[in-house]
Amino acid sequence: MLVCSKCGREYPEEFRLTCECGGTLLIRRELPPDFSDVLSGHLDIRRYLKLLPVSDDYLPEPVPAITPVSKLDIGGATTFLKLEYLQPTGSFKDRGTWVMVAKLREEGISEVVLDSSGNAAISLAAFARGAGIKAHLFVPLRTSQGKLTLLERLGAELHVVNGDRMTVHREAIRFSEGNALTYVSHWVNPYFLEGTKTAAFEAYEQLGLPDYVIAPVGSGTLFLGLWKGFSELRSMGKIDELPTFVAVQASGYESLCERSPVKSRLAEGIAITEPPRLEEMKAVLEETGGTCVSVGDSEIARALKWLWERGFMVEPTSATVLAALWRLQKSGFIPSDSRVLLPLTGSGLKTVEGI
Amino acid sequence: MLVCSKCGREYPEEFRLTCECGGTLLIRRELPPDFSDVLSGHLDIRRYLKLLPVSDDYLPEPVPAITPVSKLDIGGATTFLKLEYLQPTGSFKDRGTWVMVAKLREEGISEVVLDSSGNAAISLAAFARGAGIKAHLFVPLRTSQGKLTLLERLGAELHVVNGDRMTVHREAIRFSEGNALTYVSHWVNPYFLEGTKTAAFEAYEQLGLPDYVIAPVGSGTLFLGLWKGFSELRSMGKIDELPTFVAVQASGYESLCERSPVKSRLAEGIAITEPPRLEEMKAVLEETGGTCVSVGDSEIARALKWLWERGFMVEPTSATVLAALWRLQKSGFIPSDSRVLLPLTGSGLKTVEGI
Repeated sequence: MLVCSKCGREYPEEFRLTCECGGTLLIRRELPPDFSDVLSGHLDIRRYLKLLPVSDDYLPEPVPAITPVSKLDIGGATTFLKLEYLQPTGSFKDRGTWVMVAKLREEGISEVVLDSSGNAAISLAAFARGAGIKAHLFVPLRTSQGKLTLLERLGAELHVVNGDRMTVHREAIRFSEGNALTYVSHWVNPYFLEGTKTAAFEAYEQLGLPDYVIAPVGSGTLFLGLWKGFSELRSMGKIDELPTFVAVQASGYESLCERSPVKSRLAEGIAITEPPRLEEMKAVLEETGGTCVSVGDSEIARALKWLWERGFMVEPTSATVLAALWRLQKSGFIPSDSRVLLPLTGSGLKTVEGI
Repeated sequence: MLVCSKCGREYPEEFRLTCECGGTLLIRRELPPDFSDVLSGHLDIRRYLKLLPVSDDYLPEPVPAITPVSKLDIGGATTFLKLEYLQPTGSFKDRGTWVMVAKLREEGISEVVLDSSGNAAISLAAFARGAGIKAHLFVPLRTSQGKLTLLERLGAELHVVNGDRMTVHREAIRFSEGNALTYVSHWVNPYFLEGTKTAAFEAYEQLGLPDYVIAPVGSGTLFLGLWKGFSELRSMGKIDELPTFVAVQASGYESLCERSPVKSRLAEGIAITEPPRLEEMKAVLEETGGTCVSVGDSEIARALKWLWERGFMVEPTSATVLAALWRLQKSGFIPSDSRVLLPLTGSGLKTVEGI
């Protein structure tokens, strides 16, 4: 069922974005007694199919991967870089899109609207067409040229909006309402988080329980997905407590951290000032004793260079988590012998010309 | 041990490119009685570590992925697209580079020379530096700007050569000999094929035995790796016979097919006219009843568009295999109810501006 995170109201498991009270929804299902028993033999995201709210009959192609993990010593911490940028369209968003598109197909919805800073639009463009779904994609004019070119080549129905990320968001909603089309916003979509939660299942299988999870936070789709995945592992008795969650934001676009006057130019993937799931993210920080870190462009650029020179070809937004790790090691928040999970979220191959 | 494919001479398992007779080498090891018994719990290429000539102590980062497989009906054939472009640097070459770099580290070799049309150079640049190896990379001047930019950002020691692919090859050899450096050519390197053979192990686990394997052939590192992997599965009793191998080449650069006067502009990854392992590839075609197909730019462009519109964001060289499948279905070589494995070799994100 769908449960409102604000008023607790319950809905049947249909395609629905928000509660009538305006609150965001999460999917709640009875979990199997043992995680290990329900894993399939698939060597891709379908390994966790029994823990997802989709049936076998509507799964779209391509199928998201199980992403590898690189284990590195960074300042004394055992750091696990999870290469989420190796998903089919070059970002973790494919996990969420895949579950969302499966649900749309199941319900026979064939025309939808989404707004995105680029990666979510590319992801939906890639999965929708093969699934017989027409997707109207609203992106900011300042989206990098590389990403716009990719969207065109994917045959996307593009709507380029001259305005900031929140303006694009409002335009998409206006268009969907004016044309009676389904708005599928990954910012609030409960099915999207069901996809991103699988990154936690994989990480658990690959490295066990980390002490810290450091994730970039714009709308929070990965942050909350990881939290939901680890929470379900706890419910299934695989772990006793959650890792400490660290939310990383970009200078000038903070929603959890204090707002800085200097706007980041590099971290386009998390330039979101009013994420609808803000209260849920605050609750995760409180529940796990976590914290928020805001990083600026000089720190991001340094972390990005460090990653590339070790073979991790990510986009600038992905480097924010390393910048945050360095900062929290310096401040003493993260002790030197910790085990830290750093998801690297997006491919740097899309934005080569933008650096 | 290393065994010469020409004269049969044997060498101990050290880093060595070719036989004293000039022949190419393959690694031969005693195989375990059962493939399934030696699989590790890793959800990445290390799953097959016990079947590789490398020890646990020298494995480089990042670690190559288990790539997902998409199952599509194409002209009646059950087609399995294996998404090799989702490796850390965007091409299947990472499998080979990873094993090769592990062996170089084991032997304490810290400065090497390689020539490449782009992807192999990007792969080595990404893996070498973190492993403490300085890699001199020789690439053609006509390499796409996107790939050159990536090489620079990886901190590569670049040598750009104004000439065709074979000229670049000769220049790299001359430089390595003149400076007494180890030349590691993936074209002949026996350790490289040990990495690419894992794609066959994965495919077997993911889809069983296909009737046909259609692979692009320039130097043949994937083609021969797939053949070696399936051959080892046969030796271990998992399959009774090999799939039929189809070699796909680009117009104007044929080595197995008859040479066409029209030179492909799109398939830069396989623009290799004199591959050193040519006789071995001929033997694979003969052994499996296979064939060679040469495709031109208009067919490649059509296949590329088809793939992108279904969410498979590959480079033009990768689309050659689909063009070949269409051709062989038309000619009747591949019956409509066949099971076909199509590895998609390289990411289209690197070459966006080149199309």
